[in-house]
Amino acid sequence: MAAKAGNGADGPRSKRRVILETAVDNFGAVGFEHTKWATVAEQVGIGQTALYHYFESKVHCLLTIMSAELERSLERARKAAANHESPVDQLQAAVASAFDVTPREALQARILLSHQDLLVAPRSSEREESERQRSRELVREVEHEWAELLRRGMDDGSFVDRDERVEVRLVLGLVNSVWRWYRPQGPQSLEDISGTVVSATMRLVA
Amino acid sequence: MAAKAGNGADGPRSKRRVILETAVDNFGAVGFEHTKWATVAEQVGIGQTALYHYFESKVHCLLTIMSAELERSLERARKAAANHESPVDQLQAAVASAFDVTPREALQARILLSHQDLLVAPRSSEREESERQRSRELVREVEHEWAELLRRGMDDGSFVDRDERVEVRLVLGLVNSVWRWYRPQGPQSLEDISGTVVSATMRLVA
Repeated sequence: MAAKAGNGADGPRSKRRVILETAVDNFGAVGFEHTKWATVAEQVGIGQTALYHYFESKVHCLLTIMSAELERSLERARKAAANHESPVDQLQAAVASAFDVTPREALQARILLSHQDLLVAPRSSEREESERQRSRELVREVEHEWAELLRRGMDDGSFVDRDERVEVRLVLGLVNSVWRWYRPQGPQSLEDISGTVVSATMRLVA
Repeated sequence: MAAKAGNGADGPRSKRRVILETAVDNFGAVGFEHTKWATVAEQVGIGQTALYHYFESKVHCLLTIMSAELERSLERARKAAANHESPVDQLQAAVASAFDVTPREALQARILLSHQDLLVAPRSSEREESERQRSRELVREVEHEWAELLRRGMDDGSFVDRDERVEVRLVLGLVNSVWRWYRPQGPQSLEDISGTVVSATMRLVA
């Protein structure tokens, strides 16, 4: 997310990334519903027609933020776990990776949690529906990845043997619930929260 | 929720309760966004003007469902805990009470979870804002009630002594996260889930 428009896979002149970042900042500050699509265009410095080239609606942009955040957090957890050998260390690293985020990534995580009901019903627009499908696929991939990690720990006796498909939902439910109440100006830093949730997760799987 | 319009505190001719029930069924089936307010009026069998007398907007109705669900679940947890003496039994009963629900109450719980971001920003409409304030007050009451229960258990040595204001968010985060994935036609019954989450909660506070 450090890269700005003008760099990266979107091509040198693409405004895609800066639109997404501007949308995250606005959805995070005043909420999705209260954000005017025209405000995003204005802040990015492009016209509505150009904006439409990238995102056909505010919902399309939201769904894109959601799938991007799912992908980012999945990759981050995978990399964190890959640095370790034992399932215990891997699980701790994966949970900690969820809170090793920039302020904007924390906003993205909150936006994802707050709008997950959007993934339930099909969209009538083709572009929106394709982002929704992508997000649903990523949710399944996230659950599968974490469930496999839990299963390895159960098999080698590190965690108590339970149904990993149920356990994974409890673990992810616990980890993700933080984004409901975390605020950057709150009394707890992300570092504090990380320690608390890592230790709570270990009690959960014990 | 068993009472129908025509009974209860709303007065014998009030349609308030049947409107709320119809809205819950529709929001639950096709989602808030996809529910047409006119469909609710039609199913209840009243005109738009009469509907407006009860709820000035779909959002006003949603916020009312949310505050009603917060109140219902708080009362249910209080009653369940009051039947027991020890903090361990009280916590188990309070968690179990969250899953001792009718199908419509389960829908309400899901609607509440899915739209909690609506409680963040002030509403410009007075009636919407008043329901939002009421919901926020109830969220604080719920957290306070559960935190006190955890504190009693920490003080008598049943639970490990930690900051109960943090612990309460983990416990409620774990319990409420179920409504994200629970579906009535899914492989797990509410009774199974109740047992799983009660036991997971006890590990969390241990």
